[in-house]
Amino acid sequence: MTSVPAAGLPEWPYSPAARVEEVGERALIRWIAATLGVQTSADLVVGIGDDGAVVRARRNHVDVLTTDMLVEDVHFTRALSTPEDVGHRALHVNLSDVAAMGAEPRFALLSLGLPPSLEAAWVTRMVGALLASARASGVFLIGGNISRAPIIFVDVTVSGAAKPRHVLRRSGARPGDELYVSGAVGAAAAGLAWLQSQSRATRDTSGGDAAPAHGVLAEHDDVMAAVTRYRRPDARVALGVQVGRNKAASACMDTSDGLADALRQLAAASGIGVRVETAAVPVAPAVAQVAGMTGSDLSALIWSGGEDYELLFAVPRRARRRFLHATGRAGLPMVTRIGVCTRELDVLMVDQAGAGSALPDGFAHFAPSAPSGAD
Amino acid sequence: MTSVPAAGLPEWPYSPAARVEEVGERALIRWIAATLGVQTSADLVVGIGDDGAVVRARRNHVDVLTTDMLVEDVHFTRALSTPEDVGHRALHVNLSDVAAMGAEPRFALLSLGLPPSLEAAWVTRMVGALLASARASGVFLIGGNISRAPIIFVDVTVSGAAKPRHVLRRSGARPGDELYVSGAVGAAAAGLAWLQSQSRATRDTSGGDAAPAHGVLAEHDDVMAAVTRYRRPDARVALGVQVGRNKAASACMDTSDGLADALRQLAAASGIGVRVETAAVPVAPAVAQVAGMTGSDLSALIWSGGEDYELLFAVPRRARRRFLHATGRAGLPMVTRIGVCTRELDVLMVDQAGAGSALPDGFAHFAPSAPSGAD
Repeated sequence: MTSVPAAGLPEWPYSPAARVEEVGERALIRWIAATLGVQTSADLVVGIGDDGAVVRARRNHVDVLTTDMLVEDVHFTRALSTPEDVGHRALHVNLSDVAAMGAEPRFALLSLGLPPSLEAAWVTRMVGALLASARASGVFLIGGNISRAPIIFVDVTVSGAAKPRHVLRRSGARPGDELYVSGAVGAAAAGLAWLQSQSRATRDTSGGDAAPAHGVLAEHDDVMAAVTRYRRPDARVALGVQVGRNKAASACMDTSDGLADALRQLAAASGIGVRVETAAVPVAPAVAQVAGMTGSDLSALIWSGGEDYELLFAVPRRARRRFLHATGRAGLPMVTRIGVCTRELDVLMVDQAGAGSALPDGFAHFAPSAPSGAD
Repeated sequence: MTSVPAAGLPEWPYSPAARVEEVGERALIRWIAATLGVQTSADLVVGIGDDGAVVRARRNHVDVLTTDMLVEDVHFTRALSTPEDVGHRALHVNLSDVAAMGAEPRFALLSLGLPPSLEAAWVTRMVGALLASARASGVFLIGGNISRAPIIFVDVTVSGAAKPRHVLRRSGARPGDELYVSGAVGAAAAGLAWLQSQSRATRDTSGGDAAPAHGVLAEHDDVMAAVTRYRRPDARVALGVQVGRNKAASACMDTSDGLADALRQLAAASGIGVRVETAAVPVAPAVAQVAGMTGSDLSALIWSGGEDYELLFAVPRRARRRFLHATGRAGLPMVTRIGVCTRELDVLMVDQAGAGSALPDGFAHFAPSAPSGAD
């Protein structure tokens, strides 16, 4: 029995119900290699299939290396994310880190942990989406490995390139620099909260297992956009590269663990404090709606949600025009000024009456607060 | 309550019994950063603590990238390996891949999956050993991440450097080339089989949980050496680099999944067959002993065991003297000629009477054969 291959993907000679243990590690790797096809790049000397991959560094550039993973029931659940969502997201969480360094992503390695009883089709759908996202970002998959594991995990390493003087660090912000954030915050957290509430509602009604919420119709486009932002984050690669090239920021990091966490980390790394104007923070349109519909804490969605993969920049006043010019190009997400770096080390949010208070916490593994990706 | 820090490791302000969930991800990362201290290398521009690490490629060299992981109850068990064993091994399985490409390892990234209830001291002991092994190999840890997970996994990425013409590939072997293997095979598999038999014996006697076999006295030095080879494999880095530099081999790969698997993969990648003289294969002294003591299959220990992390080379006849000269240097493991590459595509072992038979299978994840690292 053979299944019909997805468009553009190689023939898959197994039943759609075949499990990982029936298909085997080697057949999965062969399928990945066939899906990759011949990757042509003057800088890719040896791709997958040897003990290691061999690549050429870009002349006059430094290499940026980062690794980040998605663990089942921690960063995603199979009930709330499709395999394609997981593959896309596993790549983009890494692209976001590379972008936050001002670098262009080039190569990826993939480590997979797979339960033997998992359907192999879940794996090929997930990896197929990861490869499609890689191709769309100009990234080559050059190696990896597969192991048995009791839960799924997808650990990706990405290397990128930047000219040394274009590298963006967390630690360069100075008192007086202005803080900007890309896009809007809270969308991913709102999307997740909505998916979780739908899943609970379905479960309560049916009295059975959580049904996939993928097909649920929403009345609200904003909520659907937020769900997409959670499931398929879009790393701000072009923005990070552009700001790096224009040397328009003194510091940068991504908001993967929430805006509050990013502000705190940037402040700590730079040895400064920050004052954020609460009213200036660009909140995704779905956030208030979802908070109302689900009973989620509005402030937690905005400050602590994480998973937005926006970029936070510190911009010296003298570079403001350059920064706004660089980020104003067509195709780039908007950036919004949200506050200022201070000599005092406090990390404050300031309301419209001018009263300051401490920022809420961000997401941390093992912290008593709820995990961001699991139901 | 504070624990006494291990020699050379930073103060650890937690109780020895503190669990990962009590200590938290951030405190573990701070401990790792403190343990690393200041890493000085002209080629390390940004180390851990930013969105990504920034390194400089070595001039006129290519980068070799590889990733490999250890998953609890698949590649190791806490009963049979100490945290230090796991940390050392997680690095060396990657160093072995870099060595098999003829490259010098330089930088490492570490992804950790940790159960919240795990003692944090397990983590600091494991990472401390990984860092010590990295230091001993001239490798800098430059980044990584930590996540909750239901089991421990330790996923390491290593990058190395080689001159383009020194890169060793699997695919370069030609008919007539001779096959050499470093060290001796079967040691790790024998060590593991012995540990497993001790653990079973202890369990049978005590009727309780598996007791750690770490302290068990063995009458036989060879068996202890085999146990060490399993717990603390020693990647053949200097050997791989030396053979690469001398351009003395047409192909190379490591024996991480067993000698039979390495022979098959090298043959398939090169489009050749191999004839291995069974009597010529250098078998570790403990193998026959352990097979006798534990009832393990002798042939499986030799051919399929894996985890030895020896290097298999194909050497053109005209390069034989150069190869033996390069590998004869002080401090390098011995190499032994075990067979020859053939035009016919069969992968055969040949006994002393000259009769050929197919090689046994190597280790593969999800294959019906027993996993190599778990009890």
